[in-house]
Amino acid sequence: MSQVVIDLNADLGEGFGRWRLTDDEQLLSVVTSANVACGFHAGDAATMRKVCELAAERDVRVGAQVSYRDLAGFGRRAMDVPADELSAEVAYQIGALEVFARAAGTRVAYVKPHGALYNRVVRDEEQAGAVVDGVLLAGGGLPLLGLPGSRLLDVAGKAGLPTVTEAFADRAYTDEGTLVPRARAGAVITEPDEVVARSLDLARSGSVASVTGRRVDVGARSLCLHGDTPGAVALAREVRARLEADGVDVRAFV
Amino acid sequence: MSQVVIDLNADLGEGFGRWRLTDDEQLLSVVTSANVACGFHAGDAATMRKVCELAAERDVRVGAQVSYRDLAGFGRRAMDVPADELSAEVAYQIGALEVFARAAGTRVAYVKPHGALYNRVVRDEEQAGAVVDGVLLAGGGLPLLGLPGSRLLDVAGKAGLPTVTEAFADRAYTDEGTLVPRARAGAVITEPDEVVARSLDLARSGSVASVTGRRVDVGARSLCLHGDTPGAVALAREVRARLEADGVDVRAFV
Amino acid sequence: MSQVVIDLNADLGEGFGRWRLTDDEQLLSVVTSANVACGFHAGDAATMRKVCELAAERDVRVGAQVSYRDLAGFGRRAMDVPADELSAEVAYQIGALEVFARAAGTRVAYVKPHGALYNRVVRDEEQAGAVVDGVLLAGGGLPLLGLPGSRLLDVAGKAGLPTVTEAFADRAYTDEGTLVPRARAGAVITEPDEVVARSLDLARSGSVASVTGRRVDVGARSLCLHGDTPGAVALAREVRARLEADGVDVRAFV
Amino acid sequence: MSQVVIDLNADLGEGFGRWRLTDDEQLLSVVTSANVACGFHAGDAATMRKVCELAAERDVRVGAQVSYRDLAGFGRRAMDVPADELSAEVAYQIGALEVFARAAGTRVAYVKPHGALYNRVVRDEEQAGAVVDGVLLAGGGLPLLGLPGSRLLDVAGKAGLPTVTEAFADRAYTDEGTLVPRARAGAVITEPDEVVARSLDLARSGSVASVTGRRVDVGARSLCLHGDTPGAVALAREVRARLEADGVDVRAFV
Repeated sequence: MSQVVIDLNADLGEGFGRWRLTDDEQLLSVVTSANVACGFHAGDAATMRKVCELAAERDVRVGAQVSYRDLAGFGRRAMDVPADELSAEVAYQIGALEVFARAAGTRVAYVKPHGALYNRVVRDEEQAGAVVDGVLLAGGGLPLLGLPGSRLLDVAGKAGLPTVTEAFADRAYTDEGTLVPRARAGAVITEPDEVVARSLDLARSGSVASVTGRRVDVGARSLCLHGDTPGAVALAREVRARLEADGVDVRAFV
Repeated sequence: MSQVVIDLNADLGEGFGRWRLTDDEQLLSVVTSANVACGFHAGDAATMRKVCELAAERDVRVGAQVSYRDLAGFGRRAMDVPADELSAEVAYQIGALEVFARAAGTRVAYVKPHGALYNRVVRDEEQAGAVVDGVLLAGGGLPLLGLPGSRLLDVAGKAGLPTVTEAFADRAYTDEGTLVPRARAGAVITEPDEVVARSLDLARSGSVASVTGRRVDVGARSLCLHGDTPGAVALAREVRARLEADGVDVRAFV
Repeated sequence: MSQVVIDLNADLGEGFGRWRLTDDEQLLSVVTSANVACGFHAGDAATMRKVCELAAERDVRVGAQVSYRDLAGFGRRAMDVPADELSAEVAYQIGALEVFARAAGTRVAYVKPHGALYNRVVRDEEQAGAVVDGVLLAGGGLPLLGLPGSRLLDVAGKAGLPTVTEAFADRAYTDEGTLVPRARAGAVITEPDEVVARSLDLARSGSVASVTGRRVDVGARSLCLHGDTPGAVALAREVRARLEADGVDVRAFV
Repeated sequence: MSQVVIDLNADLGEGFGRWRLTDDEQLLSVVTSANVACGFHAGDAATMRKVCELAAERDVRVGAQVSYRDLAGFGRRAMDVPADELSAEVAYQIGALEVFARAAGTRVAYVKPHGALYNRVVRDEEQAGAVVDGVLLAGGGLPLLGLPGSRLLDVAGKAGLPTVTEAFADRAYTDEGTLVPRARAGAVITEPDEVVARSLDLARSGSVASVTGRRVDVGARSLCLHGDTPGAVALAREVRARLEADGVDVRAFV
């Protein structure tokens, strides 16, 4: 039987100027892929540089975490950005990160939309297309990391870009395999043991129990870990340790 | 006798969102080098893309016009930015522009600081060093375009980067060959015929008459034309036409 | 028979730093109400001050043109801003403008949402409520200027705030009395004579011909003039002159 | 003998959107004056509202902590802002805060410049004058809180505005009574017991030991406590408790 392989990704470099959010240094010793904020929802230039250097040292892949231009809202407010503006803004962010990745001896290896843009391109064909256009504009055929079944991955695939699916061990799933909206009770799983158990389940079986108890197939190549909650780093470490103890090959997808 | 060669550069893409400043399309049919705003003092992503496409079509060189982060002040207010932040911000801007230059089939061919940063690095060793570090970080050994005798060009040269000098046909010079500060009367020459005459003078002799009437050596490889005043495009055309009629080879420096 | 009374309002102060958009000085000699940008989609502090001074000199009313926080998109991109953030941002903008209005010897006399926010609160109950909450927070019982039949005016009225309706002489109306979306052909009327004729029609009869030729009742107390197109000032002057020649009393609503 | 009276002030509301910096709720139970960030270096509208509400509940005075427009640099980078822009920006910030203070049942009671602007107006006559002009523009004759001997307080006093001096128990002083620059070793005092002892000293004697051990007269009506370091709240509590145990009347200056 072939070995199970899983990537661990997390959002990093989400401070801005004087403000910090995540413990980048610690998280980079756990994850295999770092979604680096590129300055539009978070992430100043000096922080981007530092995160790229640390990621390169630890052989962690650098991904461009592209966002709406919205520092005040941390990119969490959906915006009706015209497609030509959005695609140019996506390319702009990738290019800015590329400089720091290259200087650190690595490269931008994938793209993942952030926050409201991530949610929007699950269903919004036009914005999904704009993100894909932005990635194409940036060149290099970068893979897109996103939700299975999302418009984003569908459009990216049709455009010839590699796509990578991810799952969330700390989020409840509906019977249809979509995420239970955050506003609903029980949407976020905070019990550490349960998050660890679901991580193992997702990695090994590719499926997880839905809110009604049914098995739903998620089939993800990557697990998204959250780094901005108390105890996040400890939980991330625990997830990785248990996956490895269980014989899972924790490895980046590129 | 060898033919005189001169580059014509101008600031372009200095709108932001709804706002426009220069007639980019017209200017790109006159200049040989376009200093493209990179989003920090002006220049949204869609505009950067468009300017790069137009520049590539007309075989105009694309330069990164890097600035302090100051949209409200158009980059015209000197800022005490720590060196590590400034160098990262310079690299960020170059990287962002690179994406659009590359997508348009060209590349970022040089770097020129804008506004208050341009003036600051004439004398400020630390910030000059930070700009040079940013250019080195971005890679590719990009030439720096600036004022003869400036700290910037000196530090860049010592760091092994090519340097290119520029002169201003519409600015008065002191006997020492520095620019008369804008605040002083007569600092800016607005008479079109005089600007044309000085352009010819600067291109052919490498020198120009100072405010006291003495010849001062400026020796520039490029002339900077201004595009944000009424009649700017017409004047730029006239300068180019007269230079060419006079046998000067109007050609980019890279 | 009682005399017809109409207010003329226009967006003003919509530059930002180095950028200018409208001829504020000229427009302030035509309109009776100035919708002053408050820094979120346009409008730096120095411009806000200047516009308030000019408006006070000419006895033009000052209104707070509140917007989403979106300089890059000029406030034209709908945003899902949570209600508590939006109401606080509306109050913030009103307060900022108040200082300049007061210093100029006048006061903020009304509030009008800008761009995408204006369109959103026509139907969006939550954001309409947030705007009204922001106005209540700012205090003084300021009137809201908006579209007849909009959720905004409905919610404002229920909250005890005065409401003022406006019409657009240069926009086509549907049979239901709503604006034909800008994206559709014929949505914007550019023929000056037609704009003047429709202005007179709207002022005198309170109704206008729809795209299908039916009379639709609009019943506005104010006409919105646009200041950001070529010939805008001349057209605005013409509208005012014709209204006055026709015996219409051009007068602010507060 | 008359009782010693001292105010305790601290910077509050210095988060922005998703980012937090200080424990506003805890600090507001210690200080008597809250320097509230107004959106230019930190402080979104919803946070400003919340801080004003909490301050009013606890009978803490609300001050406008005005800054250069510099979110990326947290207002810590000196900027050459022209006087007319700076004064308008100061007024803008005061007005924005006023709305939230008023809605909370209190008012903006004083103004204190932040960060690089605070340091600049110690010596820069032009910017000191611009800040004072901004305060005058905002109206109400607001007191300015600053460093004894600074240009700011001098210009403010000449303009007829009340001035209030402050001292720093956690900063070393030169023999001339000025602050030892942060970059120098020993500039910041981190030992809690020493900070408490110096607080008592400053409150009771109006003087403190300089770096060379000489007594220097500081004579402040307010002590500035820092809220953005680990243990800051506990230290602030300790300072207040010891001052009160010592019979000092801890009371706002307005």
